[in-house]
Amino acid sequence: MSINTLIKGLKDGDEIVGFYLIKEIEAKQTNSSIPKDYLDLVLADSSGNISAKYWDASKTDIETFFPMCLVKVQGLVQVYREKLQVKVIRIRKATEQDGISITDFIRSAPVGSEELISIIEQAINSLSNDEVRTIVSFCFEKVKDNMHSSPAAKSHHHAYYGGLAYHIVRMLELSEFICRQRPFLNSDLLKAGVILHDIAKPVEMVSEYGMVIDYSNQGKLIGHISMASNWITEAAIKLGIDLQSNIVLALHHLVLSHHNLGEWGSPVQPQLPEAVALHYIDAMDAKLQMVEDMFGITPDNEEWTPIIRGLQNKQIFKLKL
Amino acid sequence: MSINTLIKGLKDGDEIVGFYLIKEIEAKQTNSSIPKDYLDLVLADSSGNISAKYWDASKTDIETFFPMCLVKVQGLVQVYREKLQVKVIRIRKATEQDGISITDFIRSAPVGSEELISIIEQAINSLSNDEVRTIVSFCFEKVKDNMHSSPAAKSHHHAYYGGLAYHIVRMLELSEFICRQRPFLNSDLLKAGVILHDIAKPVEMVSEYGMVIDYSNQGKLIGHISMASNWITEAAIKLGIDLQSNIVLALHHLVLSHHNLGEWGSPVQPQLPEAVALHYIDAMDAKLQMVEDMFGITPDNEEWTPIIRGLQNKQIFKLKL
Amino acid sequence: MSINTLIKGLKDGDEIVGFYLIKEIEAKQTNSSIPKDYLDLVLADSSGNISAKYWDASKTDIETFFPMCLVKVQGLVQVYREKLQVKVIRIRKATEQDGISITDFIRSAPVGSEELISIIEQAINSLSNDEVRTIVSFCFEKVKDNMHSSPAAKSHHHAYYGGLAYHIVRMLELSEFICRQRPFLNSDLLKAGVILHDIAKPVEMVSEYGMVIDYSNQGKLIGHISMASNWITEAAIKLGIDLQSNIVLALHHLVLSHHNLGEWGSPVQPQLPEAVALHYIDAMDAKLQMVEDMFGITPDNEEWTPIIRGLQNKQIFKLKL
Amino acid sequence: MSINTLIKGLKDGDEIVGFYLIKEIEAKQTNSSIPKDYLDLVLADSSGNISAKYWDASKTDIETFFPMCLVKVQGLVQVYREKLQVKVIRIRKATEQDGISITDFIRSAPVGSEELISIIEQAINSLSNDEVRTIVSFCFEKVKDNMHSSPAAKSHHHAYYGGLAYHIVRMLELSEFICRQRPFLNSDLLKAGVILHDIAKPVEMVSEYGMVIDYSNQGKLIGHISMASNWITEAAIKLGIDLQSNIVLALHHLVLSHHNLGEWGSPVQPQLPEAVALHYIDAMDAKLQMVEDMFGITPDNEEWTPIIRGLQNKQIFKLKL
Amino acid sequence: MSINTLIKGLKDGDEIVGFYLIKEIEAKQTNSSIPKDYLDLVLADSSGNISAKYWDASKTDIETFFPMCLVKVQGLVQVYREKLQVKVIRIRKATEQDGISITDFIRSAPVGSEELISIIEQAINSLSNDEVRTIVSFCFEKVKDNMHSSPAAKSHHHAYYGGLAYHIVRMLELSEFICRQRPFLNSDLLKAGVILHDIAKPVEMVSEYGMVIDYSNQGKLIGHISMASNWITEAAIKLGIDLQSNIVLALHHLVLSHHNLGEWGSPVQPQLPEAVALHYIDAMDAKLQMVEDMFGITPDNEEWTPIIRGLQNKQIFKLKL
Amino acid sequence: MSINTLIKGLKDGDEIVGFYLIKEIEAKQTNSSIPKDYLDLVLADSSGNISAKYWDASKTDIETFFPMCLVKVQGLVQVYREKLQVKVIRIRKATEQDGISITDFIRSAPVGSEELISIIEQAINSLSNDEVRTIVSFCFEKVKDNMHSSPAAKSHHHAYYGGLAYHIVRMLELSEFICRQRPFLNSDLLKAGVILHDIAKPVEMVSEYGMVIDYSNQGKLIGHISMASNWITEAAIKLGIDLQSNIVLALHHLVLSHHNLGEWGSPVQPQLPEAVALHYIDAMDAKLQMVEDMFGITPDNEEWTPIIRGLQNKQIFKLKL
Repeated sequence: MSINTLIKGLKDGDEIVGFYLIKEIEAKQTNSSIPKDYLDLVLADSSGNISAKYWDASKTDIETFFPMCLVKVQGLVQVYREKLQVKVIRIRKATEQDGISITDFIRSAPVGSEELISIIEQAINSLSNDEVRTIVSFCFEKVKDNMHSSPAAKSHHHAYYGGLAYHIVRMLELSEFICRQRPFLNSDLLKAGVILHDIAKPVEMVSEYGMVIDYSNQGKLIGHISMASNWITEAAIKLGIDLQSNIVLALHHLVLSHHNLGEWGSPVQPQLPEAVALHYIDAMDAKLQMVEDMFGITPDNEEWTPIIRGLQNKQIFKLKL
Repeated sequence: MSINTLIKGLKDGDEIVGFYLIKEIEAKQTNSSIPKDYLDLVLADSSGNISAKYWDASKTDIETFFPMCLVKVQGLVQVYREKLQVKVIRIRKATEQDGISITDFIRSAPVGSEELISIIEQAINSLSNDEVRTIVSFCFEKVKDNMHSSPAAKSHHHAYYGGLAYHIVRMLELSEFICRQRPFLNSDLLKAGVILHDIAKPVEMVSEYGMVIDYSNQGKLIGHISMASNWITEAAIKLGIDLQSNIVLALHHLVLSHHNLGEWGSPVQPQLPEAVALHYIDAMDAKLQMVEDMFGITPDNEEWTPIIRGLQNKQIFKLKL
Repeated sequence: MSINTLIKGLKDGDEIVGFYLIKEIEAKQTNSSIPKDYLDLVLADSSGNISAKYWDASKTDIETFFPMCLVKVQGLVQVYREKLQVKVIRIRKATEQDGISITDFIRSAPVGSEELISIIEQAINSLSNDEVRTIVSFCFEKVKDNMHSSPAAKSHHHAYYGGLAYHIVRMLELSEFICRQRPFLNSDLLKAGVILHDIAKPVEMVSEYGMVIDYSNQGKLIGHISMASNWITEAAIKLGIDLQSNIVLALHHLVLSHHNLGEWGSPVQPQLPEAVALHYIDAMDAKLQMVEDMFGITPDNEEWTPIIRGLQNKQIFKLKL
Repeated sequence: MSINTLIKGLKDGDEIVGFYLIKEIEAKQTNSSIPKDYLDLVLADSSGNISAKYWDASKTDIETFFPMCLVKVQGLVQVYREKLQVKVIRIRKATEQDGISITDFIRSAPVGSEELISIIEQAINSLSNDEVRTIVSFCFEKVKDNMHSSPAAKSHHHAYYGGLAYHIVRMLELSEFICRQRPFLNSDLLKAGVILHDIAKPVEMVSEYGMVIDYSNQGKLIGHISMASNWITEAAIKLGIDLQSNIVLALHHLVLSHHNLGEWGSPVQPQLPEAVALHYIDAMDAKLQMVEDMFGITPDNEEWTPIIRGLQNKQIFKLKL
Repeated sequence: MSINTLIKGLKDGDEIVGFYLIKEIEAKQTNSSIPKDYLDLVLADSSGNISAKYWDASKTDIETFFPMCLVKVQGLVQVYREKLQVKVIRIRKATEQDGISITDFIRSAPVGSEELISIIEQAINSLSNDEVRTIVSFCFEKVKDNMHSSPAAKSHHHAYYGGLAYHIVRMLELSEFICRQRPFLNSDLLKAGVILHDIAKPVEMVSEYGMVIDYSNQGKLIGHISMASNWITEAAIKLGIDLQSNIVLALHHLVLSHHNLGEWGSPVQPQLPEAVALHYIDAMDAKLQMVEDMFGITPDNEEWTPIIRGLQNKQIFKLKL
Repeated sequence: MSINTLIKGLKDGDEIVGFYLIKEIEAKQTNSSIPKDYLDLVLADSSGNISAKYWDASKTDIETFFPMCLVKVQGLVQVYREKLQVKVIRIRKATEQDGISITDFIRSAPVGSEELISIIEQAINSLSNDEVRTIVSFCFEKVKDNMHSSPAAKSHHHAYYGGLAYHIVRMLELSEFICRQRPFLNSDLLKAGVILHDIAKPVEMVSEYGMVIDYSNQGKLIGHISMASNWITEAAIKLGIDLQSNIVLALHHLVLSHHNLGEWGSPVQPQLPEAVALHYIDAMDAKLQMVEDMFGITPDNEEWTPIIRGLQNKQIFKLKL
């Protein structure tokens, strides 16, 4: 009997005992003449998902379990319609005594949130222009707590715990390179743009454990781009910085133009060198991370990843040279 | 000899003496072997434009006259390449003694600016919700002085002195009708949306006597939609209104969504009933005014107006029933 | 036991007896080893829909009931997969003695069809130009009977009994306002355009009780826009009006251009002031009615309406001030 | 001295005497200190165009000559800015005694109009279905006189005398082939569609000698597609054919759908096999004729034709194998 | 009892015995309390498909049958949810002794593959230019074996056994007609373009018995257009033909441009007369075949075909005159 | 008198003597009654352009000078219509004795061509996979000589001497950074993609001194993307590398997909991680270079660059912090 084998490693016939996260749960009924309740589940750990059926679910069971609940499961791995599935034999909720944490069971960025936040804060501190630094810092403080967990998007890219912070950090690295390669770029502005461009996403989206559950009312009615622009105004007023200054103008512009086109959500198009750079740094990091993330969850024996919506609905090929 | 006949009424062979505005001026040289200076002009009054040539221009003349300068002209109306043109015989700058004002010579809204401003202020005062009213009032005060002259657009529609105020006033009329017809609409929100939707245009565009000369740096880099959104934030902070309140959320949304689509400049799409109404009220007023304005400047003997860019580059037919 | 409670008001555990309309019906079989027939139903009244299961359906039952059939039902309201559902205990077809009418059970315009038809007829009679009036009248007579029930569209807007007549009446109100606000518009033409623009819809679409079941062959192969244009020709010929007259030209143009763009179905673009007005009046009324209709069917405890296809697939927010 | 050499054959230094058509004419003035009138001309014959200057034009000359006027010219061919140009020495209007006709000087289809009209009439007579034949014949009679000269388009394709009739005849040939190749197509319908599809173009466009001068009011406000559809209705009424018959339905559909997409002007999309065939036959004939016409006017020493707007603004390569 | 009646002719109550192809097969389980295995099948012959259920499937049965396997079936035709379905009573795999072949049970072009291949080879031999002929022949030899079965597309058109060869042959017929009608076209080039344009499809797509199962890696990463272009290069090198010659240039261009637009997959747009012709010949043949194929599978009592994706998602009308 | 002052530094009233490049030249005639020849010129050096007039041009002068000819000019700088212009007093062709070279007078990359070529060759040598290296080397050798001067585009970006080599070198730098940041990328493939992606541009475009004069026939009919793909095939055949190998497949794919979308010229979309990276590296380098190049030619006193077509026709703002 395998104890807490990672889901990725399960195979037909395995008997398992271990802790899992309930990602989806639905009470269903068999279509027999006397319908019978059962639970249709998706179990998850940090390595992936597997569907499961609990045929002997009682009324109490149906009321006990819920999405994002940690459980201990005993079961049997079977092949059903060409896919692996767990037939649940016993299941109970995890207790404090089990000593496990939900964060062990969810997908997250390859670097820890604490470290990511710390790198971003160093970048903020390194901004040489006082007004840029204090405005960026003001905005960052608004979401710092949420930043630990916030994903960068619902499903497109960096859609996991710490995804947004990770996206910012990688973009900062790329920005530094580009500023070295092209000294006519203003490093303060570009770094500020990187940190501010998606800064309102943790308020635009309602997420739990790195998974976006919904968009907030503000998110739907204003959108993260305009929210961030308004935070800059708020920061300038509260910090006593002239709203008409070129610094404030530039920060607004960087945020507002970073989606490049109107149909992608930007009310103005890039018209500062740093705004042009910001858009392409953002795009490149997002697209490459989509590919890297997809490679991570594509089984070793598959030649092609699943379809990636953000890459024109194409699959990516795992070329062997 | 006709004294100050309106340009619209001039005909071949007329001898004229009168005051005109120089709308365009360029010093040119004949291509003769000994090139000679002359002035190529466009003269204007409130009824239209006419081109003019001053063949005997001296060096002093060339330095004396400039665009938007009022002049007294004696000349002869001639047909040249199927168009009327003034052959200038004498020309001098108007002086204080002439007792004329530039505003008599420019195109302007059919209702006086003072009256338009006053109607808008009444509408603001009629807003029953205190927070809506004070925010709208705060934003309006920012541009009230410019509002007298500001056009609503560079060339699309209401492109004349007082055009923006006139656009707002006609939209307020339409809003009142729609709110009576459909009581589920919130009249305060819709009226606020009407007043705020283009409120930043006088700062987005640099205009003189109702003609847009250029866009400001803020106008290009932020755009009037995001500028107005930021003014709402500024107003709320300075008036002590909760930035998270639904009132503030709604006002942001009305302004941000009024262009309807991303490719038309709106970062979010209408998601309040009043935002849907605002977009169509704005569109209907702008499009019908384009037609009405074009009818005004189309000669009586023409069946078709010039091409109207904002109406899919179509001409409008002057149907006789 | 609740007698004929409106569907909108039902709750878990209610026992009901009442009359309902069968909106959808399908005979299904359980997946048990000895499959058993049952009826899967959607019951409706004017307040909404609810799904229902009749587990004890006999072969006779399966042959007896059909879509749009009125029935008397005894049943039990239960929660199934988070939704209310009626477990049917007894069901029979309604009879003449029950004294009920299908029109009591369907969704319909907020104003009665008779009144709407009468308002449209008054508007026709008020047309001052004889040729306009007789052509409009000729076309209206073609569909007057269907106009009582005809919806304005399959699902986009005014998709209910009397929807088309209601759409026309609201547009007439808006037209009157616009003609007062902008006297350069020809009121006869605009009103004629409003009445004619969708006049062929009752023939384009096959509808029953205000619900579109299908498009007719003519509807698919010619479309309501070209059909109405051809009716104008037919009217002119039969009424002895010159086919080359400006009146006929204008009426054709109003109908043909009212969808504004080629990709929206209009073979020509608006080139009369009244055609520009007609398009925006049509658009504004349709869009605002979509919102108002959706508000009507959104449960009180929901903040957002369902997605509205005709509004860029957006939901509308029910803002509380 | 070369007498009436074709324009295509002129070269630098030629002295010419001959008859030409004035295609364009403008009275201009030299920019010398004492401006002097001259005539700026474009002369044409069936082989092409050449620009010309008449420096010694008197006031009488300026009033004498006009566009589409036949003239006898004596002149000298010179190179000016890398192009050939005629310096006019003497010019007079052609008289009856000169015994020349304007049709000798314009571009026209490679087959004579009489022959083309006769082929189309034979095709109409060959239609086996009486109702199809009489409707097509009715519509054809409306424009038969104009059909001799009418071009098929303003500039896209077949833009010359008899161009429309030639387009129809070539399409009839292609239709016959396709009907033989695919017997499931109804030959009567396809041939009727070919003859009717552009039948209203001679009324949509105002042309002279095969050159489109303008669009008619009907052309702009209704368009040739809807005009032809209305002619079918008129024909059916006047011929006593049931407006609801499938024949009438099919003819409407063929005409209305032949531009294939809404954005190309068709209010409905092809939904009959013959409508699908008609669109592609029309497209293929138009596109190939564009190429063939352009080859005809491209000088022998050029490898590439001028840009062809109807072929995505591409030039076509004159490949030598 | 009907023996091997074509599926198209089956009706309710028929008892059948005959050979069929298993097109789809899935082992399912009843939802009864003790789930029971059964087989859910789609049976096919050359006339169409029918679904079937084998309720008494044993474990052995489940392992025995697979997609594309030929079987002998005894069963009963029943109506289920308004559709015919076979209740399987007995089923076994066909054996060699049964003397049947899979090709008798699949959909295929109306002309036999051998004949089609032979016509194409004659066309190749008839190419008068040696270099054109040898290059075309080289490319054709690469896929000649696959060409017997290869469909022309996954589902759009000619999606059956021999479909590609049939498409080429019909296009050759059309090419011959067009070259006769327009002698300025180079017949060698056009015929070569027809044969080469889709020549790499048998390698781009993985198909079995005329049904596309997947795209190959080359197909996804290079695409049939660029693959064919590269085969031309390969042919030229191996045949010693100058890569810079106009022949090679023209063949590349014909292949590369035949989809006409970038968004349809062509990196260059047609710029040779023959390339323009090729595109429209390809489009016309594909579109008309879609219609003809759909007519073939639409039941006689249906007025409209199913939706055809390649014709703007429209259905085609089966008009009765 | 200023000797060979850079054009950028000229001011009104300067008398100059120096060497310049004739960039444009046209013989014109004055419009005086006795027309007189003169030369209308654009003079250039590495710092910019200035227009010039030579009023005393003789027939011999007109035949002597031509575009791209180096001349010695004596003249006077004057303001004409608000722009500086040179009134030429004396002009002669430069001779060998003058010891000047055309390359001193043209715009070129900031790094010398020799150095750029050498860097690219080092990058090729550093490719660890033998097949990748030899194929890349084979293709590079085809254009190595042209690579010294070839621009990367006609006007979009890097449109100067050595522009293409400079583009490749900057992209190599960026590639190296990205490969370090994301080790899952194959460095050989990405570097190969960078070197090959525009490798056929020197053959697609006909350029002189870094300025594109025209596109070649191959360039128009095949395009640089498909040309490069065919060179890979040629290389593989001549180097004996398997055409079906994954290496060859990957190199084809990188080249073919680098424009990302069909409408931008790529017949396939990126489906390898390195292809995704290549597209964004290419885009970022091109866009940032456009900005940097425009900054270089924008006068110091201008706040905004000229419009940049490749950046959505926007100007870029020269922000002063």
